[in-house]
Amino acid sequence: MEKLQIIKIGGNIIDDPNSLRSFLADFCRIEGLKILVHGGGKLATSLAERLGIPQTLVEGRRITDADTLDIAVMVYCGLINKNIVAALQASQCNAMGFCGADGNLVKSQKRTHAEIDFGYVGDVLRDGINVKQMTALLEAGIVPVISAITHDGAGTLLNTNADTMAAKIAVAMSASFDVSLICCFEKNGVLLDPENDESHLPVLNPQTYAELKEKGIISKGMIPKLDNAFEATRSGVRTVVVCHAKAILNRTYPDHGTLIVSR
Amino acid sequence: MEKLQIIKIGGNIIDDPNSLRSFLADFCRIEGLKILVHGGGKLATSLAERLGIPQTLVEGRRITDADTLDIAVMVYCGLINKNIVAALQASQCNAMGFCGADGNLVKSQKRTHAEIDFGYVGDVLRDGINVKQMTALLEAGIVPVISAITHDGAGTLLNTNADTMAAKIAVAMSASFDVSLICCFEKNGVLLDPENDESHLPVLNPQTYAELKEKGIISKGMIPKLDNAFEATRSGVRTVVVCHAKAILNRTYPDHGTLIVSR
Repeated sequence: MEKLQIIKIGGNIIDDPNSLRSFLADFCRIEGLKILVHGGGKLATSLAERLGIPQTLVEGRRITDADTLDIAVMVYCGLINKNIVAALQASQCNAMGFCGADGNLVKSQKRTHAEIDFGYVGDVLRDGINVKQMTALLEAGIVPVISAITHDGAGTLLNTNADTMAAKIAVAMSASFDVSLICCFEKNGVLLDPENDESHLPVLNPQTYAELKEKGIISKGMIPKLDNAFEATRSGVRTVVVCHAKAILNRTYPDHGTLIVSR
Repeated sequence: MEKLQIIKIGGNIIDDPNSLRSFLADFCRIEGLKILVHGGGKLATSLAERLGIPQTLVEGRRITDADTLDIAVMVYCGLINKNIVAALQASQCNAMGFCGADGNLVKSQKRTHAEIDFGYVGDVLRDGINVKQMTALLEAGIVPVISAITHDGAGTLLNTNADTMAAKIAVAMSASFDVSLICCFEKNGVLLDPENDESHLPVLNPQTYAELKEKGIISKGMIPKLDNAFEATRSGVRTVVVCHAKAILNRTYPDHGTLIVSR
């Protein structure tokens, strides 16, 4: 099967112009088929603040009301996505920017929860990835740059977690491609000591993951990120790596990042 | 040659949810190859006001500074474009939203002017339309929905007039397709009396256009719109029509709109 690399970048890379520029230069140099999935970063939060739109958290989880959705769509699909595409095009990478609504690439359903109304948040449907359309784009020499906004197929856009979106795309594309999912951020992988960037684990399996969560060594935002990574590795994605954005060209994992393995 | 319809909608249609919904329902029913080009409307202006970003006009022409460009990118490529795409997808129209940077579809150059610095405004280059990529999208069954943001090929996004963009795309695509350019807005075409929607001209040629401009009957925003329309009709676009957004399915121009003819 042909190789396909799916790279996910997080907010801290997007928020820093130098990191983003350096990352995009490396991304251009990746050979073969590739897809970039990006999240949002602090731009959406700061725009909401400037517009005086209060951001509601319920039990630590952000609620996406209609105004907040509009901001996410503007910032993720507009400002971030199109500036990334323009930068990649300037380096002869034939990027096209998409959200899940474009070509019905990623369909989701509005999250339902017994107690919390999360608002316009979408969970990717089991068969929500349009593998045929995505494959056609790749075969046409296009590099999809995908922002984490999806649609419900009935005209409504929905805010979706970028790590989940990247993992779901990776799983779905694994039926036809030899997929590597590379989740990169501003740290050298999964760290045993968050303050020490040299403390990264070369490999993480489910048992060690459970133990480290138990001890509180892996906590907070790393948990959903790693849950998505393990889900991908259990569901047919050949290689799943969590690494620093600087390491995407370095093919010597696990030296530069944490390889996520299913057992 | 295969028929291709390029429909341009203006701000007044976009600003009114009912008009937009009705237009999109009609747009879905257009048979054959089609492209939608859209402008911005009042959303960008109101967002700039809410953010306290002053909008500068020099000699009646808007200046696009860096902040204003960001707003245009957010509103045109994000909010408007993706909501249109989601609505079309909900009606089984396989829309994909693009700006000029995506797939290098429309390349422009920053406007240079002896006295006025227009800022981040781009004029479409003579060979700026990527006909090959646009054709590939159409042949793949995709309906491009294009916002009027372009790029300079060096990483910078630029604000571009939507009428000009639609006309340039129409001209370039005319080498391979039998193109109709349908510029629609909230009036029944070119009116002899702006207050009377029944006063539309069935046909407009360059001589009558010059006379009506001279008399001040055609003025202001209609002039650049019609200049683009005449440029298109002179440059190989088979049919150029200015009409009401309600009339796009009615194939009996000039009864429902003004047919622009080159002589």
